[in-house]
Amino acid sequence: MKKIITISREFGSGGRELGKRLAEILKIAYYDQEILTGIAQKSGLAEEYVKSIVEKKAFVYYPVTIGGTFSATFNPQLEINTKIYAEQSNIIKELASKSDCMMIGRCSDYILREYNPFKIFVYADMDSRLRRCRQRAPEDEHLSDVEMKNRIRGIDNDRARYHKFLTGQIWGAKENYTLCINTSNTEIKDIALPIAELLKAMLYASKRQVNHTED
Amino acid sequence: MKKIITISREFGSGGRELGKRLAEILKIAYYDQEILTGIAQKSGLAEEYVKSIVEKKAFVYYPVTIGGTFSATFNPQLEINTKIYAEQSNIIKELASKSDCMMIGRCSDYILREYNPFKIFVYADMDSRLRRCRQRAPEDEHLSDVEMKNRIRGIDNDRARYHKFLTGQIWGAKENYTLCINTSNTEIKDIALPIAELLKAMLYASKRQVNHTED
Repeated sequence: MKKIITISREFGSGGRELGKRLAEILKIAYYDQEILTGIAQKSGLAEEYVKSIVEKKAFVYYPVTIGGTFSATFNPQLEINTKIYAEQSNIIKELASKSDCMMIGRCSDYILREYNPFKIFVYADMDSRLRRCRQRAPEDEHLSDVEMKNRIRGIDNDRARYHKFLTGQIWGAKENYTLCINTSNTEIKDIALPIAELLKAMLYASKRQVNHTED
Repeated sequence: MKKIITISREFGSGGRELGKRLAEILKIAYYDQEILTGIAQKSGLAEEYVKSIVEKKAFVYYPVTIGGTFSATFNPQLEINTKIYAEQSNIIKELASKSDCMMIGRCSDYILREYNPFKIFVYADMDSRLRRCRQRAPEDEHLSDVEMKNRIRGIDNDRARYHKFLTGQIWGAKENYTLCINTSNTEIKDIALPIAELLKAMLYASKRQVNHTED
């Protein structure tokens, strides 16, 4: 059985940086933008368009609860969305089957649940997230603090809705993760190495995969 | 400023064992039963009685919302409870002022909030908790699995109510903790050392205590 680590994260919490650093330390593959590129290639749709479906609000028009009736009415947008979601799932599973890896977002924790992945959720208080966003995105410096906070909350709301839509689970509910880490007032570079050691201890401990027979 | 670590934990999750091991590795004081003993000594009440107030259901008769009116009617039980809660807070603060330490439960995370403690929440799925309870408490072997699960849930419900009563916060909500760790299918001895390293990295990083001026 491959060792899979997934990271879900609040916007501005440093989750992506943590994922990159952990993948480097553990010497495993890192997949983030690659997932969108793969969907675009397989579906024949433009990457930016795929991104707008996967990361933005398009999905909210089609809540999971209408599943029983939507076939009654043909809806071309829904057809495209369904195709994109199916490709996303295929790509993520294909990448995971190749080697041990780190997956950032895109419901990979749920899509790869049969691998019993190590699921990390990264979060932080609003002040820390605002500070981190300011540091890494100088092009947004025209935004006031209030505007920036609204943007952060908006992106997280999109992520929560997207997660709920595809998985039926509550995004960020600790029961769905192996480790939830609060990065408020913390530099990611300071914590990556000990978290990598903790991952190794938990992923390679003999009892963890007791229920699995593959590989 | 002293370095304080608090552990809150679901019953059977291995949180107390983790706390003991971390305190040993970090060479800091460990407080658990000592808090109850201290309350008993200071209040003149029997330790078992104090335990029944702090850990059992006595407190639920006096929800925090009646605070504005309870003085109108003299209630000796409420007087004793209030005395115990006040002593608990005093003892925990007194112990924390002595040296760096590890505190297990009893709302110490909230009572010591001015120290900006490293707050850990330990949880696990029901099967793992049941297994851990069976291993450590052979005297409960007459209980069926259903009875044991009900006991586990009952103890956690008490903890959640007690926490809500004293702090107004939701017990286990990840926003209130620095690290939430899921110990399902995990041996505590395997993870104590890397978690201790993570604690050191986060507690001693320069930015963590930027808002504090004491010590």
